[in-house]
Parts: sequence; C-alpha cells; structure tokens
Amino acid sequence: MSMVSIDRTKLKNYLVELFGKLHVSSGDAAYVADVLICADQWGVASHGILRVERYVQCLQSGGILPQAEFTVEKQVGGWAHATANGGLGIPASCKATDLVIALAKEHGIGVVNLRQSHHNGAEGVYANEIAKAGMVGMVMSTGNPIMAVTGSAVATIGNNPFAYAVPAGKYDTLMMDVAMSAVADGKVQLARAMGKELAPGCILDKDGNPSVIPDEYLNGGVLLPFGAHKGYGLAVMVECMAGILSGAALTHEINSWNMTPNHCGNTGHLLVAMDIGKMMPVEQFTAQVETMIEQFKSSKKMQGVEEVFYPGELEHRRMAAAGETVSVIPSTWESLCRAAQAVGMEAPEHD
Amino acid sequence: MSMVSIDRTKLKNYLVELFGKLHVSSGDAAYVADVLICADQWGVASHGILRVERYVQCLQSGGILPQAEFTVEKQVGGWAHATANGGLGIPASCKATDLVIALAKEHGIGVVNLRQSHHNGAEGVYANEIAKAGMVGMVMSTGNPIMAVTGSAVATIGNNPFAYAVPAGKYDTLMMDVAMSAVADGKVQLARAMGKELAPGCILDKDGNPSVIPDEYLNGGVLLPFGAHKGYGLAVMVECMAGILSGAALTHEINSWNMTPNHCGNTGHLLVAMDIGKMMPVEQFTAQVETMIEQFKSSKKMQGVEEVFYPGELEHRRMAAAGETVSVIPSTWESLCRAAQAVGMEAPEHD
Repeated sequence: MSMVSIDRTKLKNYLVELFGKLHVSSGDAAYVADVLICADQWGVASHGILRVERYVQCLQSGGILPQAEFTVEKQVGGWAHATANGGLGIPASCKATDLVIALAKEHGIGVVNLRQSHHNGAEGVYANEIAKAGMVGMVMSTGNPIMAVTGSAVATIGNNPFAYAVPAGKYDTLMMDVAMSAVADGKVQLARAMGKELAPGCILDKDGNPSVIPDEYLNGGVLLPFGAHKGYGLAVMVECMAGILSGAALTHEINSWNMTPNHCGNTGHLLVAMDIGKMMPVEQFTAQVETMIEQFKSSKKMQGVEEVFYPGELEHRRMAAAGETVSVIPSTWESLCRAAQAVGMEAPEHD
Repeated sequence: MSMVSIDRTKLKNYLVELFGKLHVSSGDAAYVADVLICADQWGVASHGILRVERYVQCLQSGGILPQAEFTVEKQVGGWAHATANGGLGIPASCKATDLVIALAKEHGIGVVNLRQSHHNGAEGVYANEIAKAGMVGMVMSTGNPIMAVTGSAVATIGNNPFAYAVPAGKYDTLMMDVAMSAVADGKVQLARAMGKELAPGCILDKDGNPSVIPDEYLNGGVLLPFGAHKGYGLAVMVECMAGILSGAALTHEINSWNMTPNHCGNTGHLLVAMDIGKMMPVEQFTAQVETMIEQFKSSKKMQGVEEVFYPGELEHRRMAAAGETVSVIPSTWESLCRAAQAVGMEAPEHD
C-alpha cells in the first residue's frame, strides 16, 4: 500500500491550527499533535492521526470541552488526584505526566489518578516520557466495554491498556504498551479484508460461541482477553486502579466516544513514576538493563527468527527511520482531510 | 485421586517444629507455615507445602540462612529498600508486607523493594494481605530463567510472577496471581501423565521449534510467554521493577534453587500498597468493585459456562470449603514425610 507522507513540523503546525478552530489552546493542541505523531512514527497507526477526525466530532458535539483545564483536586505526599474536567485526554495526560515526574522527584514515588478524561492515545507515550526522566514509568487507562470477561458471552469490560517504560542506558528506552484483548479490533478487520481466519481464543460470535471467522466478530461478536483469565485479571486491575481509584466512570458508564461522541466519557487513567536515582545510581540500573537486553539479543534464536527484539525496540527503530516524516495509509489521510473540512480548513498538503 | 488431609493448626505446629530443627525462629517458621497453607487451601498446590522439602534442602546446604534478618537499608518517603540477607523468602516477604502497609498508612503510597531473598511462595498471599488492610496491593517477584523471550529458542528470563489484590466490600478480595508462561511447568507434566497434547504456543522443543508434545519440553525444551510479546514484556517489567530496581540478581545470576539448593538465590521482590482511604472513602471504592463483580456474574454466559467468576473467587471458595483442613495429593504428603525424615522428625499424622 502506498503511504502518504508529510513533514512532521508541517503536520504539527497544521494540527495546531485545526484544533485552534475548535477553541483548543495552541499549547493543548501541540500536545495532541505530538502524542499522535509519536504513535504514527512508532508504527502504532491505530493511535495516531487516524484519531483526529473523531476528536473533532467530539469537540464539535460537546463530548469534549475544548477549554477545560487540568486541575489537581487532592494530594497526599507524592500521590495526586486530578481531573481533566471533561477536556481532551491527551493534554491532560501530558500535564499528569509532568506532574507525576515532579512528584517522584520530590517524594521518590509519584502517582497521579486522573478522572473526567477522554481517549488519550497510546499510553506508551507517557510511560516513555517518564523513563526519559530517569524513572520507571507505568500508565494505565480504562475504556468502554468491548471485551468479554472469561466465561461471559458479551462485552463486559474495556480493552484497558497498560504500559510501562524504563531507561535503558545506551539503548532507547525499554517499553511495552498493550491492550488486554487477544487481538485488536483493527486486526480483526484486517484479517477479514485479507480473507484470513483468526487464531483460536480471540473472539466469540454474537451467540457467545468461540469462532475464528472475522465476520462473526464484526456482526455482533465480542473480543476475548489475551491469555484467557490472565488478560481478564489484568483488565480488571486496570479498571480498579485507573478507573475506580480515580473516581472515574465504571465499565458501561464509560461512554463509547465512537458511538456517542457528544457525551463526556469520564475515562480514568493512572500514572506511576519511580525516581530510580533516589535509591541507586541510575547508571547501576541502566547497566543491568543493558546487560539484560544484550542477553536477549545474543541468545540462540528460534528457527526462522533473524533477530530478537527487546520490548520497544521496533517502535524506536521505526521512529528513527521515519526521521522528520510522518507516513500514514491513504484512508487515514482521507480521514484527516474530512476533519479539516469539518472545521472549514483546506486539506493539508502532503509531500 | 484420594487426598491426604490434616488439621490446619496441627500442620502449622508441625511445620514450626520442623523448621525449628533447622534453627529457624518460631515466628519466621509460623510465617512460612501460614503462607504455604494458604496456597494449599486456595488450591494453588504448586506453591503449598509441596515446597517444604526443597526449603529444607536449601536450609541444610547453606542456600538459605535460617537466622538472617529482614533489614531496611534505605528509605525515601514511603519507599523502602530492604534485604532478606540471604534468609527465607516467605518471612522476609511477610515483614515487607507489614512494612509496605505501614508506609502507605503514613504516606498514602508505600513501596518496598526486597533483595537477597529467596522463593517466597505465592505472591497473591501478600497482595491479599495488603487488600485486607483496605489498600490496593501489587506484588512481583523474579526467578531464574525458565522461559524463552519472543524469538529466542532458550531460557532467557524467569516466569516472573505478578499479583494484585483490592478490597471488594461484601465480597472476598478481588485478586490475581499469575506467572508469565503460557502454561506452568507442572501442567506440562500433568498433560504428559494424561497423554494429552498442549495448546499451540506453549513450548519449544530443545532445538527451538514450536511443539505441542509435553515430552519435547521435558527433554530440554523451554516454556513460552503467555500472549507472546505481551507476556514477554510483562516478564521484563517484573525483572526491571522487582529485580534490577531492588539491586537483586539479574536473570541467569538468579540461582535455580531446585538445581543448586546450596547457593543463595538473591531473588528480588517488589511490593506496592496504595491506601485508598487517603483519597476517597473506602466504601466508595468497594461499592464500585461490588457493582463490577455483579455485572460480571449477571452477564450473559458463553455456551456451556455455568458461572462467571471474578478474579480470586475460586481461591476464596476453595479456602472456605477447606475450613480447618488442609488436603494435599499423596506425592506432596510423601515429600513432606521426606522433609521430616531429613531433620530427624517422625512423619506427621494425617486425619
């Protein structure tokens, strides 16, 4: 598939202008642009500028308040409870990231619970920022139910993503960002388009029967957790820590921003930062991480495998290869053009 | 299989006497007995009194120091770095649990890193104690490599268990305790005994080829992470947070207590406690957990499923059914009898 490419700075400036038309401050719009562009450059296209069109719909219909401020409601030691007050999830999460790093610098451990938030892109972006500050970062987020808990035949819990990152010395940060389903919705759609079956254990059909046929998920079926009860248990952990403990909405009360963009989602997030340097020289920590990475990469490989990657390595490589360019598939570009049209802007120019 | 049963208090007293023969204090021995018995009553037999025989071998050969003390080396706010000083993992982890709860009571968030430790049984026991104190608990532990990271053909990382627990109001605590492999070593052995194949994606044979034949794992093969790169990423997270951040041994430096019981393992653990009441009424938190549990249990079920369980429900039910009795399979009983013989005690009497 031929990709559409655009200069990163040009795209960022364009997005800042676009969100500005919807009364989002240039600072907040820059956060949105940076986080979405990072995901695209990492190769996580599902969380990149593909999301702009829906954010615009939410902003235009009142489901996201463009000028809502990030505020801290309560703080005990290094633990803060904050709210996005119904605003964009990305700027609030960026401010929560700055806050959790500052809290960890002062108290050793920083924790921020964030409620009244919205979709905040890829959690890994925030975890990675924490790691770049020399800390261990952990980030979780709730979402509306799209997955069946083990034994259930229907959507009972969100795909509740979980991310962490740690500094890795001479290597780029070591990081992971995963959702709790065995397969992402987008990958089911891709399998269907390619006429392929899914692996067993990924979906149920509309009657609650296991299936490997993409259409049986797409016609009223449901996703299953990865690792069965393990993914189920992890999704529940995220619901408890990022949702309930934040005072955010619970499961079905979390609005589907795709289905009803005009309702506030009250999504919850949790961010944790541990300032390594408080306990040991950061170099001692990163030297061990480097050793571990080298053990993985030099280990005997499976038949047919050319290289073992450490968690996050592929994302960093893709970003380095992308350089100053952002590349998206044509349908994502068309989506961005529709978003531009919706706010009365000319479509952006690509390279 | 007919089980061997014994009164819980009688078994505990017996174990305290047994470990006392090896110069373990009665207080520390009581911790070991309680944690192992809890696992057996939960139905997690792999982490119950089955482990006594190996603990005895480690104590007798110098791999575990019976009188080592749990000491705190450094503290910043609610974050403590502690060491088991080469002693038993279970008493040190129980003391770390008490400490992390006290730290959270004072600072909101408590974190304890523990190094120079040893096998500490089921992480879920400690997470559950934190939850019973009205807090969110998270516990992780490293182990010697027995699993191949994604793409590798050989053991490159431990099965690094992860547990969490939260209070659930009128329900028993909600909790999960999982290892990072797709299937436990014990379950491969069971499949072999029953002449069954494993699901795809669980093991590699000694040449690094995917296999479903238990014997091909048992003859020099290796376990695979659950959810492929997701389980890999989580195992690495535990290695970083419970191992490296604790100043404990890294991957292959972690001693295999089964292979060389006379070497100290320098296993690392991480315990986290978040004191819910610092941020919201605990009843507000638990009311939401109750609602979530009721949503799961009342949801439409998969064909053939009679009941949906919340995470930890089965363990609590088994413990309630066990009451004052501990039941183990005959081979575990025989193992306990061998441990008794090794310290010069009469075999225990069962019911």
